[in-house]
Amino acid sequence: MDKLQEWMTAIRRDLHRHAEAGWFEFRTSSVVAEHLEKLGYEVLVGTQIIDKDAVMGRDGKAVPEQKQRAVRQGAQKGWIERMGDYTGVLGILDSGKPGPVVTLRFDIDAVEMNEAEDENHRPFREGFSSLNAGAMHSCGHDGHTAMGLGLARILAKNRAGMSGRVNLVFQPAEEGARGAKAIVEKGFLDDTDYFVGLHLGLGNPTGMVVAGASGFLCTTKFDVRFRGRSSHAGVAPHEGRNALLAAANATLNLHAIAPHGKGASRVNVGVLEAGEGRNVIPPAAFMKAETRGETEGIDAYMFDRASIIVSASAAMYEVDFDVSMQGKGIAAESDGEMIDLVLQAASGVEACTETRRHGKLGGSEDVTWMMKRVQEKGGKATYILLGSDIAAGHHNEYFDFDESSLSTGVGVLANLIQKLLAPGL
Amino acid sequence: MDKLQEWMTAIRRDLHRHAEAGWFEFRTSSVVAEHLEKLGYEVLVGTQIIDKDAVMGRDGKAVPEQKQRAVRQGAQKGWIERMGDYTGVLGILDSGKPGPVVTLRFDIDAVEMNEAEDENHRPFREGFSSLNAGAMHSCGHDGHTAMGLGLARILAKNRAGMSGRVNLVFQPAEEGARGAKAIVEKGFLDDTDYFVGLHLGLGNPTGMVVAGASGFLCTTKFDVRFRGRSSHAGVAPHEGRNALLAAANATLNLHAIAPHGKGASRVNVGVLEAGEGRNVIPPAAFMKAETRGETEGIDAYMFDRASIIVSASAAMYEVDFDVSMQGKGIAAESDGEMIDLVLQAASGVEACTETRRHGKLGGSEDVTWMMKRVQEKGGKATYILLGSDIAAGHHNEYFDFDESSLSTGVGVLANLIQKLLAPGL
Amino acid sequence: MDKLQEWMTAIRRDLHRHAEAGWFEFRTSSVVAEHLEKLGYEVLVGTQIIDKDAVMGRDGKAVPEQKQRAVRQGAQKGWIERMGDYTGVLGILDSGKPGPVVTLRFDIDAVEMNEAEDENHRPFREGFSSLNAGAMHSCGHDGHTAMGLGLARILAKNRAGMSGRVNLVFQPAEEGARGAKAIVEKGFLDDTDYFVGLHLGLGNPTGMVVAGASGFLCTTKFDVRFRGRSSHAGVAPHEGRNALLAAANATLNLHAIAPHGKGASRVNVGVLEAGEGRNVIPPAAFMKAETRGETEGIDAYMFDRASIIVSASAAMYEVDFDVSMQGKGIAAESDGEMIDLVLQAASGVEACTETRRHGKLGGSEDVTWMMKRVQEKGGKATYILLGSDIAAGHHNEYFDFDESSLSTGVGVLANLIQKLLAPGL
Amino acid sequence: MDKLQEWMTAIRRDLHRHAEAGWFEFRTSSVVAEHLEKLGYEVLVGTQIIDKDAVMGRDGKAVPEQKQRAVRQGAQKGWIERMGDYTGVLGILDSGKPGPVVTLRFDIDAVEMNEAEDENHRPFREGFSSLNAGAMHSCGHDGHTAMGLGLARILAKNRAGMSGRVNLVFQPAEEGARGAKAIVEKGFLDDTDYFVGLHLGLGNPTGMVVAGASGFLCTTKFDVRFRGRSSHAGVAPHEGRNALLAAANATLNLHAIAPHGKGASRVNVGVLEAGEGRNVIPPAAFMKAETRGETEGIDAYMFDRASIIVSASAAMYEVDFDVSMQGKGIAAESDGEMIDLVLQAASGVEACTETRRHGKLGGSEDVTWMMKRVQEKGGKATYILLGSDIAAGHHNEYFDFDESSLSTGVGVLANLIQKLLAPGL
Repeated sequence: MDKLQEWMTAIRRDLHRHAEAGWFEFRTSSVVAEHLEKLGYEVLVGTQIIDKDAVMGRDGKAVPEQKQRAVRQGAQKGWIERMGDYTGVLGILDSGKPGPVVTLRFDIDAVEMNEAEDENHRPFREGFSSLNAGAMHSCGHDGHTAMGLGLARILAKNRAGMSGRVNLVFQPAEEGARGAKAIVEKGFLDDTDYFVGLHLGLGNPTGMVVAGASGFLCTTKFDVRFRGRSSHAGVAPHEGRNALLAAANATLNLHAIAPHGKGASRVNVGVLEAGEGRNVIPPAAFMKAETRGETEGIDAYMFDRASIIVSASAAMYEVDFDVSMQGKGIAAESDGEMIDLVLQAASGVEACTETRRHGKLGGSEDVTWMMKRVQEKGGKATYILLGSDIAAGHHNEYFDFDESSLSTGVGVLANLIQKLLAPGL
Repeated sequence: MDKLQEWMTAIRRDLHRHAEAGWFEFRTSSVVAEHLEKLGYEVLVGTQIIDKDAVMGRDGKAVPEQKQRAVRQGAQKGWIERMGDYTGVLGILDSGKPGPVVTLRFDIDAVEMNEAEDENHRPFREGFSSLNAGAMHSCGHDGHTAMGLGLARILAKNRAGMSGRVNLVFQPAEEGARGAKAIVEKGFLDDTDYFVGLHLGLGNPTGMVVAGASGFLCTTKFDVRFRGRSSHAGVAPHEGRNALLAAANATLNLHAIAPHGKGASRVNVGVLEAGEGRNVIPPAAFMKAETRGETEGIDAYMFDRASIIVSASAAMYEVDFDVSMQGKGIAAESDGEMIDLVLQAASGVEACTETRRHGKLGGSEDVTWMMKRVQEKGGKATYILLGSDIAAGHHNEYFDFDESSLSTGVGVLANLIQKLLAPGL
Repeated sequence: MDKLQEWMTAIRRDLHRHAEAGWFEFRTSSVVAEHLEKLGYEVLVGTQIIDKDAVMGRDGKAVPEQKQRAVRQGAQKGWIERMGDYTGVLGILDSGKPGPVVTLRFDIDAVEMNEAEDENHRPFREGFSSLNAGAMHSCGHDGHTAMGLGLARILAKNRAGMSGRVNLVFQPAEEGARGAKAIVEKGFLDDTDYFVGLHLGLGNPTGMVVAGASGFLCTTKFDVRFRGRSSHAGVAPHEGRNALLAAANATLNLHAIAPHGKGASRVNVGVLEAGEGRNVIPPAAFMKAETRGETEGIDAYMFDRASIIVSASAAMYEVDFDVSMQGKGIAAESDGEMIDLVLQAASGVEACTETRRHGKLGGSEDVTWMMKRVQEKGGKATYILLGSDIAAGHHNEYFDFDESSLSTGVGVLANLIQKLLAPGL
Repeated sequence: MDKLQEWMTAIRRDLHRHAEAGWFEFRTSSVVAEHLEKLGYEVLVGTQIIDKDAVMGRDGKAVPEQKQRAVRQGAQKGWIERMGDYTGVLGILDSGKPGPVVTLRFDIDAVEMNEAEDENHRPFREGFSSLNAGAMHSCGHDGHTAMGLGLARILAKNRAGMSGRVNLVFQPAEEGARGAKAIVEKGFLDDTDYFVGLHLGLGNPTGMVVAGASGFLCTTKFDVRFRGRSSHAGVAPHEGRNALLAAANATLNLHAIAPHGKGASRVNVGVLEAGEGRNVIPPAAFMKAETRGETEGIDAYMFDRASIIVSASAAMYEVDFDVSMQGKGIAAESDGEMIDLVLQAASGVEACTETRRHGKLGGSEDVTWMMKRVQEKGGKATYILLGSDIAAGHHNEYFDFDESSLSTGVGVLANLIQKLLAPGL
């Protein structure tokens, strides 16, 4: 294993161990910022790169406690202060020479779930499973972040032979499609000529590089609160207004929404918390939910149906309710020109044993906000699927990936940037 | 307002403000024990009166934190230490003269729910609403405890004119039918000749005293855990095993159990917590539930049906599950002889403006374990319903009661004991 | 077995074999009318005794076919014609002497269900199980009718020694609480001084006579139609409006209505028919349902909740719906004076081995409309529970009863009338 | 409008008016056979072309009544007798000269649903809407059959200039994927060199011809019967075993099966019939259901989940159940060579204004059994999507299509056969 691979693996495992959910990536941002600064990048963090009005699905009340936790786990106070109450890092490497602007995006947040505590799970067995309850890198963003820093090192070394400018965006809160838009709205993508995002795993084996992705599912993330009335479950059950039954019934019927005949559709109630005491008719319930669709129309169909079901379930149990929007993901397409360039870049990487032009994502990714903005402004964009054998499906508590893919990914990206920013091109 | 009423009101409000859920009544027990000791009672606490093997529905892991909280809120460390990890107090007043043993039971725990934070709610408006999230005296046990201490004062003063012995049992964890049996099994009820329990409110207006109760609902309290498998809700929903859907479906169908033709039956899922992240198929769910029935047979029918429904819901969603028993309440009947005595005692209390021989409880009460044991050993028992106007139903977040009823209750009990323990009887 | 018993048994079995559901009792009415006329009664039938505006839950469209069927099965055309399109018989025996008016009511309809075809079921084994699909005498009204005719025979014989008048009401459509009110509204109960209804079985063993009943459940019967939109279940499921899902969801949630803390409550969806083809999103659904409650308030609570649930389920699936009322039963109490008389009458019947003053019905009975009208007009009423061992519960496909109880019942009624109408009383 | 168009339109409307559900197409088969015989075809019907062991989803008990109905509606007794109890027609036109075998398949059955009775619906307004309750040509098979006969006429006229042989298969029971396999298993497809099936409408506008289809959904059709126990809904609800609740709960949860991440999946409960009387706990329920999947694996996933849900719902309500298979559809792909030929054939038809190589069906079609058999035996197959504007979606009660497309379809098919069977090819 070469040194860069070793270095990235160590970073990945450190981040994995200190997994942080969306908008709480204070330690992760601190680690990234510190490395980038040492490598000579101009570094912007938190409120400097986030448009607060465009932020979605952030639990502001938990931020002070999360900042404290981050510091306890090694975040540097200086960076935390510079961040304000927002996470995320932008590293800028300007060659000083005229040339195109290339932006790469790496997402840094963990999934809100618990990690397996089981000897069969390598991160647990080898001591780098998540210390933070309710946060696990089960989607590989720890690997993405490590690749971003690995690439930063290579670029810093090659700076002299480069024209134009490179932006490395370390984006918070990709899970839930919450963070990308807030960076887009700040305008940082507006002068980008070439944009690349990537994701490891997703069923593609180690060695495979898929140069462009389609099939991003549009998605809408929302919370629902039901509020009823408590009563004694033995003496006066009829006096209650049962918020749990409203929520349970909504859950079942949400999952029974008729699929759309024109393309894939999804719905999930990911979290339900309801009730207070065993012998009390539950007066309150809280749900985190999402819909998805292969097109914006299909997602709109799903969300419309979902809204009707929530409203009718509340009416059925005579409880109040409100729905609050928490995130929104859109669709995007990769540009053929960029796909060609990625394929060329990949051909120069030995570990890349197989390439494909196109792959279908089948999930949602808020990178689409960035791709769309770049394309609207006249730039080109693609989204690379980087093969990496996985131990279990994404968002499964046993998820783990083949760390050797980190080098492969960095190799492809470095080649691509060289092609794009070689002076005289 | 006379001094005793004032004193009891102050105690009641202090306890209301520091509401403690079942098995966590460390501060309450400390307050009670301290008062009893000052009044000259022999005082036993916690492990001295609790048979640990008979304890139900206790969250042992939370005890250390709860003890710390209690101390922060004014519990005396000495009493906490004497309690061990268990709550509850027994105060014994022995006249030194031969005579019968009279036992009175006061339950001391709060309901697991949040209190209304609303100016229309007197405890909030007047500053004595619960400081402890998830615990509210919405069943009036704060009043019961205050009456127990008020009675203790009167008895201590009248000790000289008394024969026999009085036991004042301040029982933990009545909610959920968890605590009484643990005291019964320790044997403290075995030599009791006369036993009295009581409850305020329950639809009876201030001034009313109902001398005996029937219609206790038998009850079974149980927790259910479902364990499935997480997966990515967009990419691979079919790979998940959805524990939330299993729980939601179980909840709905539990509430749809056919009522029993022979008498009242109840079921409640009071709490449901499920899932981890919005975009993750929920791998786990946890439910607190209970069944009730007018007879043991009806409760058994309800619990059997509930077990089948839980098991079938788990099978339906291919998830694992387990059911753990958390409490059990039985039925009991009041003795006619005791009812007569209570009616006589009530007739001597001016504030008691109306009496009835019999009332139907319609709820569950684990005092039945004590009544049954006393009756099995040849003693007599009754359960008094003490009228008290209430602001909202029991277990409602706006519950409050008419504190003037405390004096009425203490008056009836003091008269009753005088009748039972007058020397020469 | 004496001759009257033999005669009633034969009638009962003939009626059992030709079971007719409510408002379709054309053959039964013909049989009853024919016997009464032969015995010298004044006989009124169908439209002569039914107030059409007060009729509930009658399927008028099926009447012509049912009349044809009845004739095929032996109904006399002359009686059918006199009935018009309505069933039911009133037999009047006037002594010609002044005296009180006594009215007895016998219900004649079968339950809408199929009878067991099983050698273990006596009616099947012995060849008198129902020939009519969807109609079975599983509630014992065949026995009631046979008793009414048996009593008619005795009274006709004893006519000379009688003063006053006897009305024998053979009421259609008791099941579903549909028929009694239509007779009441025609005014036939208005001059009644003493009223008696009865029911056999209901858990009371052969030999038992319970002289008065309470605990009639109030009830509301209603049909629901959901109308959605069909679409291709494979190509365009999202274009459908699924009436079956609306109905299934309503059904589940109807059964989950919280029981009322103040007394027994019931709900049943007895019939659901939905959909057209396997691969078509179901555009229509039809439900027959009912609620019950120990008081009118409780039944109103149940029906209000049911209405909300039906409406919300329709909204949830974006389908239209309508609710149509099909029947209504109320509560009533037996008069103490009548209970005393029944107990005296029973004491003179050898086969009556045990009596009780009061019993709880636990079901609904539209006889309550008659009892209430009689009581409002100053008369006295009671409802007798006549013991009869049963082979399986009422409305079970294996229901059968001990025919020897027919003589017991007739004996009690005959004694009672003798007491009431003995000249000179 | 030319004469052939007029003739086909008349046939289509006659068939539409006498719509017959799968396995009951006795009149339709008689009409087809009669025409073919007159045109000089060798005609085989019913049992001559159906392998009874491979028949799925046929209600044999209803056949005698359906045959009578067909005769009443004009079917010729001679043909009905030749059919035996099975429907379907094979017309063979043998040129007598050596050459390839071309088989074309037209499905003839209606959908099990009711047709709109509304002046806005042309078939109703113009008097050719279905006379048969529960059967409607809402999928266009009446058009397919008319095209088959139209083509038969053209071929009969051109017979002299033809080599080889043409088989025209008029297949029963396509809806529910029930009939094709029974013809395949009889061996009639085994010597086919070129096979063509087609479907009109499906979202393709009049004038469009799509030369090959993919995306056939695999499908499994099944019935479920639940059997519980009746009881009195008021007196003894707890004694029942509620088959309707089992079915309602199964229905809801079937529709909530998680979609498959790898491709489209479907489930439908198309029919539910349950219960007997309003006040009886429903002892029985019957469901017609189906699953679909983009691959056999996905359909297997759906059916496995469905089986588990049905079984668990039965267990939950303690009722018995059985699942019986009623139909099975598989996937197939069109051959490129055939697609090329269809495109050429279409280019010679003026009314064909637009062509596409490929279309996605998105539904199921049991023609796949035929395509697969032909391909396995070395032949080539395709499935044509024939554009036709529709008034409402397939299987909607307002479905109707643009009859001018019949000529377009026949034109393409005639050209194709000419290409395939021109002597000397």
